Amino acid sequence: SHGNKEYAYLLCVGMHGESGADAKCPPQNNTAINFFCNYEESRGNFLVDVDGNRMLDVYTQIASIPIGYNHPALLKVVSDPNNASAFVNRPALGILPPESFVDKLTEGLLTVAPKGLNRVQNMACGSCSNENAYKAMFIWYRNKERGTSIPSDADLSSCMINQLSILSFSGAFHGRTMGCLATTHSKPIHKLDVPSFDWPIAPFPRLQYPLDEHVRENAQEEARCLEETEDLIVKWRHKGMPVAGVVIEPIQAEGGDNHASAAFFISLRKIASKHGCAFHVDEVQTGGGATGRFWAHEHWGAEDPADIVSFSKKLLTGGFFYRDEMETDKPYRIFNTWMGDPSKNLLLAEVLNVIRQENLLAEVTRTGKALLGGLYELQAKYPNLLSRARGQGTFCAIDVCKASVRDKLILQARDNGVILGGCGDLSIRFRPALIFKEHHVHMFLNVFSDLLAAH
Amino acid sequence: SHGNKEYAYLLCVGMHGESGADAKCPPQNNTAINFFCNYEESRGNFLVDVDGNRMLDVYTQIASIPIGYNHPALLKVVSDPNNASAFVNRPALGILPPESFVDKLTEGLLTVAPKGLNRVQNMACGSCSNENAYKAMFIWYRNKERGTSIPSDADLSSCMINQLSILSFSGAFHGRTMGCLATTHSKPIHKLDVPSFDWPIAPFPRLQYPLDEHVRENAQEEARCLEETEDLIVKWRHKGMPVAGVVIEPIQAEGGDNHASAAFFISLRKIASKHGCAFHVDEVQTGGGATGRFWAHEHWGAEDPADIVSFSKKLLTGGFFYRDEMETDKPYRIFNTWMGDPSKNLLLAEVLNVIRQENLLAEVTRTGKALLGGLYELQAKYPNLLSRARGQGTFCAIDVCKASVRDKLILQARDNGVILGGCGDLSIRFRPALIFKEHHVHMFLNVFSDLLAAH
Ligand code: FES
Repeated sequence: SHGNKEYAYLLCVGMHGESGADAKCPPQNNTAINFFCNYEESRGNFLVDVDGNRMLDVYTQIASIPIGYNHPALLKVVSDPNNASAFVNRPALGILPPESFVDKLTEGLLTVAPKGLNRVQNMACGSCSNENAYKAMFIWYRNKERGTSIPSDADLSSCMINQLSILSFSGAFHGRTMGCLATTHSKPIHKLDVPSFDWPIAPFPRLQYPLDEHVRENAQEEARCLEETEDLIVKWRHKGMPVAGVVIEPIQAEGGDNHASAAFFISLRKIASKHGCAFHVDEVQTGGGATGRFWAHEHWGAEDPADIVSFSKKLLTGGFFYRDEMETDKPYRIFNTWMGDPSKNLLLAEVLNVIRQENLLAEVTRTGKALLGGLYELQAKYPNLLSRARGQGTFCAIDVCKASVRDKLILQARDNGVILGGCGDLSIRFRPALIFKEHHVHMFLNVFSDLLAAH
Repeated sequence: SHGNKEYAYLLCVGMHGESGADAKCPPQNNTAINFFCNYEESRGNFLVDVDGNRMLDVYTQIASIPIGYNHPALLKVVSDPNNASAFVNRPALGILPPESFVDKLTEGLLTVAPKGLNRVQNMACGSCSNENAYKAMFIWYRNKERGTSIPSDADLSSCMINQLSILSFSGAFHGRTMGCLATTHSKPIHKLDVPSFDWPIAPFPRLQYPLDEHVRENAQEEARCLEETEDLIVKWRHKGMPVAGVVIEPIQAEGGDNHASAAFFISLRKIASKHGCAFHVDEVQTGGGATGRFWAHEHWGAEDPADIVSFSKKLLTGGFFYRDEMETDKPYRIFNTWMGDPSKNLLLAEVLNVIRQENLLAEVTRTGKALLGGLYELQAKYPNLLSRARGQGTFCAIDVCKASVRDKLILQARDNGVILGGCGDLSIRFRPALIFKEHHVHMFLNVFSDLLAAH
């Protein structure tokens, strides 16, 4: 029943500026709050709100719930008295790790190490993962230039001059702390008023979908972007701000679910290598299985896909995998107090077990086919409303004719028991958990096609 | 017994570069690892290593364990089945908070809100707390300049020009992500190779200790620093990079436990206000009770101590308190996926209960007197080895004549069952948990004075 939704939904809406007017509103900018949830009652693919409404969740806390709400395997991890210590004694992992730390890494994160990346630096969220990946690339680049890891006195006193840069792409999203934000270009309001760096921004290909029906035009567009990228790398070197690393998402997520071909990424990686730049694939949103492979970059079929792969969200913790050559030369250069959280590693190891035991990557591929097929049908039926259906696995999106119509459809879907999220200017993105099955696809399609028919 | 410590201590030492040579070493730069711990067996003030050695912990995971290891009250929070959901369903707090979110804030964080700061933004660690506090100051400053919260098209496209700055102090430590790092100046190696901003760095007073025996010289030094700070604010305004905020630690911790007088901080806050700059007190290391007050800035006795106070470490989560006027004008300007972690809020609420029930702030004051008194005695007895004993509550430090002697004393203390940490060039810092009692002080003093006598 969706009878009494108003209480939850309207709780903080319009309250901004009337501070303290409702004790239920947190004393902070609360204007992004959609509604309040009952996580205790939520199960699997279904999120329950404070009024008891049970909704199919196709957004999963911004793509960050891997195997659904209250998965029994995860509840067991928490209730196991042997694990209590990990939850109450958060160590400074970089200096005093628990005895089990390496075993947990070996059973957990290292089982999903991307090809060629034998090392992993644990962090706590997407932002510190990317910030520290950038730092690792800066350090690697300068050590390579120096030919030695011993900095000169001039090096130590000259942080301001001869700075390095990171090349990113239009429409990219890599986080909102200040280093990440310098490479984020999804919405101007995210960057407004915050100082940034003069770093190069290359064009991300604007492709036509379905990709396999527009191969020639798309290849041209990708060639243009690659050429411009290479020009920018050369230009910034001449400016005295060489590009230490190129960072890119395998699918631009916040920026509107923009895809590119495997050939594009492989060529880009070659251009980066040719110019001595590290190649960093940001899999914070794409990693963890939603594309049908554990890492989206596996779809490229590349022998040598990346120098650095960062992750967070569905992996519950954060961090980045990297090549042996990119190891830092000294302690405390990549460091902070907590360096991640062993309790999240425990939960992650269990998530990875469930993915393997339930064969969830194959399931995602199957479910994704049904989802994308359904979206193709709907856009064929409503060509004035919908276009550009696209996706890999269940990591799908579709465009709506106008932003206002998109926003209205998302609200209406919610009022009919389906939680969706937007991205970019016109897109609806689909970010279900890995346990989303074909019958959940049909539940969503039924609600969505009714809304479209009524439009 | 400290018989077989070698295994744990030497595990990763010297292994750098021999990747995979010992399966127990994490595949990352592991050269900062001191030893591996058995957190299950650790209790209260005592950390146990993998060989079963039980050590008095006067460093507490870089000042981040508030009420000791495996506190029964915290174990109860984890084993309570009603809390399981908070540990396994990490929400996107900024958009879909749990029903209990506001109650948990009200029972928890808001009970320790600094004077005048009614609002709080939850974050996850010290770095994202400071990064977002800086962003809040930039946004506040520009909105104030505009006189409206509606940005012009020029504003939206001009992130690179007319940038703002944050004024920080020599010796400061505010974190290692790129915005924070631009204000961190404790050790050159932390900043080496990483691009930074051209922001003003004011001198932090270099005082003589004990403070009350050097009032006149210290006041002169503080006056000099205040004058230079004001000059820098004016200079950066003229450069076209106005100072949006001044950030300072109440005691510079990583930089060597540098103190300043209440009068200094109050004057500094006035100078910031006079020039329209926000005043941000970074209490990531000082907050949570170790100085004998919940916030170190309470010792200033100021009516209006700050515009922003950031925290993390002992508070288990992160975030910043702020004044109503500093609220952002729009959603998603201060935002990320997780916005903290409700499971840490649960633990924090319990930590705050324990602090109140066990009257721990008064205990810290009493214990701190014994600790500082003991340090004064030792430096009187060993004037060639020790100097500059200083502290507030148990947040104490003492200088050693040479860095090599300091490092050796810390190692010897560890081999005799006491874990200490260094800071700055010559200091040993004391960062016990809030449950550190006078008899623990005597345990430490006995070990330490034996080491000094043998030197
Ligand atoms: S920056 Fe990642 S947890 Fe704070």
